[in-house]
Amino acid sequence: MDYDIAIIGGGVTGLGASIYSARFNMKTIVFSGRLGGLIQDTHLVENYPGFKRLTGYELFQNLLEHAKDYSDLVDIKEEFVKDVKKLKDGFEVIGEKSKIKAKTILFATGTRRKKLDVPGEKEFTNKGISYCATCDAPLFRNKICIMVGGSDSAAKEALLLSEFAKKVYIVYRKEKIHPEPINMKRVEEKIKEGKIEIINNTNIVEIKGDKFVNSVIFDKSYKGNKEFKCEGVFIEIGHLVESDLAKKLGVKLDNKNEIIIDRDSKTNIEGIYAAGDVAAREWKQAIVGVAEGVIATNSAYEYIQEKNVKAK
Amino acid sequence: MDYDIAIIGGGVTGLGASIYSARFNMKTIVFSGRLGGLIQDTHLVENYPGFKRLTGYELFQNLLEHAKDYSDLVDIKEEFVKDVKKLKDGFEVIGEKSKIKAKTILFATGTRRKKLDVPGEKEFTNKGISYCATCDAPLFRNKICIMVGGSDSAAKEALLLSEFAKKVYIVYRKEKIHPEPINMKRVEEKIKEGKIEIINNTNIVEIKGDKFVNSVIFDKSYKGNKEFKCEGVFIEIGHLVESDLAKKLGVKLDNKNEIIIDRDSKTNIEGIYAAGDVAAREWKQAIVGVAEGVIATNSAYEYIQEKNVKAK
Repeated sequence: MDYDIAIIGGGVTGLGASIYSARFNMKTIVFSGRLGGLIQDTHLVENYPGFKRLTGYELFQNLLEHAKDYSDLVDIKEEFVKDVKKLKDGFEVIGEKSKIKAKTILFATGTRRKKLDVPGEKEFTNKGISYCATCDAPLFRNKICIMVGGSDSAAKEALLLSEFAKKVYIVYRKEKIHPEPINMKRVEEKIKEGKIEIINNTNIVEIKGDKFVNSVIFDKSYKGNKEFKCEGVFIEIGHLVESDLAKKLGVKLDNKNEIIIDRDSKTNIEGIYAAGDVAAREWKQAIVGVAEGVIATNSAYEYIQEKNVKAK
Repeated sequence: MDYDIAIIGGGVTGLGASIYSARFNMKTIVFSGRLGGLIQDTHLVENYPGFKRLTGYELFQNLLEHAKDYSDLVDIKEEFVKDVKKLKDGFEVIGEKSKIKAKTILFATGTRRKKLDVPGEKEFTNKGISYCATCDAPLFRNKICIMVGGSDSAAKEALLLSEFAKKVYIVYRKEKIHPEPINMKRVEEKIKEGKIEIINNTNIVEIKGDKFVNSVIFDKSYKGNKEFKCEGVFIEIGHLVESDLAKKLGVKLDNKNEIIIDRDSKTNIEGIYAAGDVAAREWKQAIVGVAEGVIATNSAYEYIQEKNVKAK
């Protein structure tokens, strides 16, 4: 066996876990198509206890530096994983370039962003359409923008965007947006200032433009003019779970395709663990994902120890 | 009701939770007989992901500062809690000085250190006997010391102590000490250097001295001279769970007196949550306690929301 544990995913969950697997003296490999994962697109993290306020990118860098402190035991490969196969006595992980064997697997694969799936979306992506206000907000200075979505993330993105844009319209398909109360308060203040307005119960059915976006088409539930002029469309409507590889191995998923784990981060298959956004939980947070990853390394360590004892 | 949530315990778990309860816009009170809890006696924390290396005291201060950032919603009372009573619609918390009502309770009460319970222990505490190498190691420069215990904590304490003491004898009642592998390696290096020696399968039955400790008496399982000369005795033999108040309320404990919680940090009683070292889990870590506390605040928030809806 090349490694004691292969961690698939190099977001905060995977990196946090690698610190602990190294402390357990386990030879560790972390595969990641995009080191740092989605948190690096988050402008402001105020809720990783211990850091009052930092950017998602800074939090990622802190975890990466921490993991690199154990580089004698942790290999980091910036590759997507194409397949994971069950062997007689462990697993084979097939990356874009590497192929390795590991005794245990931790899925920390997280999620990817959901698309709106309407005409014009593909055409105008990066031409007025963005999936990341943290990345692109400054490009929309003094422009009229739409933020599609009703979650806490959508509200946070709208707040950031409103620092630059002329006005942000939050367009949500249901009755009422549902950010964390602290962010709802902030949105309400921006509404008073005239910087944000909420359009509820409305769907976008098309995005139109010339070289760049210049309008969206609302569905019939919208009372006003169906063609709504705007220069930016930000889409923050949730995420799809990256659990396909796990599913193929026979790992049990719930009805949202999230990997079912217990309090020890164990899945239904021996030697396979999951943690973070790919694991089933109603309410997800970076700090919780990191802790789940940490717990998984302890479970993997004990599993390997037990197998060693039995083999003697 | 005075508060939405009363957090009993102001260690890293309780402080981390208060950051989140405030973000949920919940009026929060934290009671703590010793703000910061046991982690502040830990010399070196290398395993709170995001901080490569800091003292336990620094980690506590970071969390305290973070919590204080929400002081409009979080009251911190440096008082032990004497009793918690169930009311018709919430709970009453009786501190040494304050008495308040809260809709929900989070037990983050942690543990206290176990004593050896042998003759001489009480008499020579702080006169050669210590329960905290982090606090007292520098006082034992060039002295012969004993570290009683076989856990990871005992090993870490012995390593620190060996930086000061002439020699450290780790005395353990069972066959083999069981620190984290990375710390076992470090102990082995110190053994090679002649700074640490392990005495297994041995109990201390008495601690003797004049003004200060000058020897311990080993039980008959020890092969050599039963009276062993030493100037320092450090005791790190585990912890007792602070779950008495919870038990009185009818909260279910396991056979180690730890509070049984589910993945949402819920106990068997509605509105009562637990997290951190007081909650049942085989392997405990600061990062995991903080995450459990964070999860508890979400559960408490949802419980209060649901009750409000029902009351309408």
